[in-house]
Amino acid sequence: MKNSETCHWLGFDLGGTKMMAAVLDGNFKTLASVKAKTKGAEGAAEVLERIRTTIESALREAGLEARDLDGIGVGCPGPLDLDRGVVLHAPNLGWRNVPLKDALEKKFKCPAVIANDVDAGTYGEYRFGAARGARCALGVFPGTGIGGACVYEGKILRGASGSCMEIGHIRVQPEGRLCGCGQTGCLETVASRLAISAEAAAAVFRGEAPALRALAGTDLSEIKSGTLAKAIKAGDGAIEIIVRNAARHLGSAIASVVNLLAPDIVVLGGGLVEALPDIIIEEAQRIIGAQAMKAFTKDLKIAAAALGDNATAMGAAALAASNVES
Amino acid sequence: MKNSETCHWLGFDLGGTKMMAAVLDGNFKTLASVKAKTKGAEGAAEVLERIRTTIESALREAGLEARDLDGIGVGCPGPLDLDRGVVLHAPNLGWRNVPLKDALEKKFKCPAVIANDVDAGTYGEYRFGAARGARCALGVFPGTGIGGACVYEGKILRGASGSCMEIGHIRVQPEGRLCGCGQTGCLETVASRLAISAEAAAAVFRGEAPALRALAGTDLSEIKSGTLAKAIKAGDGAIEIIVRNAARHLGSAIASVVNLLAPDIVVLGGGLVEALPDIIIEEAQRIIGAQAMKAFTKDLKIAAAALGDNATAMGAAALAASNVES
Repeated sequence: MKNSETCHWLGFDLGGTKMMAAVLDGNFKTLASVKAKTKGAEGAAEVLERIRTTIESALREAGLEARDLDGIGVGCPGPLDLDRGVVLHAPNLGWRNVPLKDALEKKFKCPAVIANDVDAGTYGEYRFGAARGARCALGVFPGTGIGGACVYEGKILRGASGSCMEIGHIRVQPEGRLCGCGQTGCLETVASRLAISAEAAAAVFRGEAPALRALAGTDLSEIKSGTLAKAIKAGDGAIEIIVRNAARHLGSAIASVVNLLAPDIVVLGGGLVEALPDIIIEEAQRIIGAQAMKAFTKDLKIAAAALGDNATAMGAAALAASNVES
Repeated sequence: MKNSETCHWLGFDLGGTKMMAAVLDGNFKTLASVKAKTKGAEGAAEVLERIRTTIESALREAGLEARDLDGIGVGCPGPLDLDRGVVLHAPNLGWRNVPLKDALEKKFKCPAVIANDVDAGTYGEYRFGAARGARCALGVFPGTGIGGACVYEGKILRGASGSCMEIGHIRVQPEGRLCGCGQTGCLETVASRLAISAEAAAAVFRGEAPALRALAGTDLSEIKSGTLAKAIKAGDGAIEIIVRNAARHLGSAIASVVNLLAPDIVVLGGGLVEALPDIIIEEAQRIIGAQAMKAFTKDLKIAAAALGDNATAMGAAALAASNVES
């Protein structure tokens, strides 16, 4: 093995709408990063090809070649088979049983590792961001769904062959709404960006959110995190109530997880939290403080993610390094 | 260090009503075990003294002396400071800030370690019982409260200085009953032995449980796990409904934990499960299968604890050994 100081790692964030390749040096300093659209609708082969060219662009920008890479790490939407490095099913990418690890290793001739995107993002925050050095860090990322991850004593908690920490499917309302997973009353049905957007669209329809009407109308697909933030800033009180209510549900579910795992820090991230950090952290913190057990909250920190968009790629790069070094 | 084959370990189960000392050889074969009443009401000094004499009786029965012991492990009611080996607060023992580890090390001149009783019991099941060799074992022990523990890749998951996995305080009914922890709607308020006994006492009062009336009347303190089992066997259908309903709540909370930790096995133990294993395992299994995510239930086992009363002492002995060997 080379001296780790002279290594180069490629961290990749493979999202449903966009992808990002980052080249990091042996001290995990980012040398270059390149973004591209995912365009999953064009098919699996196209997406794989675009991953390749995005990595090559990032290498070029860093003044490196493929042979300079010591390892690749990719954060992807799940479910994954981590041991075999296969993406089992990713509807947004049009993927089913894609052997991503093998494809990258063949192409770039270096070890590759795949990870769940939220696992990689939380690991990134643990290594380089808001949760640096935590004994136990819980990451919660509300988006279309709500992803969770836990880094416990330096390692990502995982299931038998894939990820775990499905905090979005903790049941918060026994008689609640239908969830994408087939159950009713999951946290995702009341606190995901999608749930919030649906509620906000109804508020627009009822005439309670004039600013949001002007920005997005009643089309749920147009009501994104940034749009919600703009509407609240422009005075849509109903939208603020909807977001605060969702954040309280989020806090309540996190309180249950705090009672189970006793983390030292909860990192909240993702687009919704980035757009509305104050409101969400404030409400979640209040409810966690009120509902979790005192023994577990007295030294608990609740923080917004610090790395923003870069968390997953940076975490994936760090996983690439520990994959090679282990 | 001696050859581990020739070692002797003392495992101790310190309960609110009874205590047990077990002497195990280097292969964790039990050589002797002695039980005694705890009698917490007599005061902390008395309980400490009784622990000493119970350990000495067990050593005598095994034909050994204190100097033959290589380590002591104690499973105790919490909360505990595991690092310092101090029992912070145990109302049933009349204890507050008792330095149990130091007291035992001074007396028996060998390393001692303390653990939460459910942690020790689950670890016992992982090492010697129903969860042997599991990658991730979740232990759930309904009693007066509901204890939980998780052994993940060979180690007990823990909080900053104490236990975690407070599954009894997962919120299952947002508008539910008052719990001992100060919150409302915790799992303990609907599925603990205490909650079941309270509901059963009301059924007796209403005249719906004649067998239980004959066995225990309406005094909740008299309605123990074995009494509930006898009443069901004698035909009290209302009591069976109450227990099945509680087991469904238990299953629902376990389903959330399964979605978080993706264990390979859930071990259900404690007096209530020992008295009514079929009913409780059947209902819990059904609900977990229906409510947890398919990816996590397809290979999941749900099993009753195999070591009964001995799980905590045996687990504590194994912890004593890994404490010395680490």
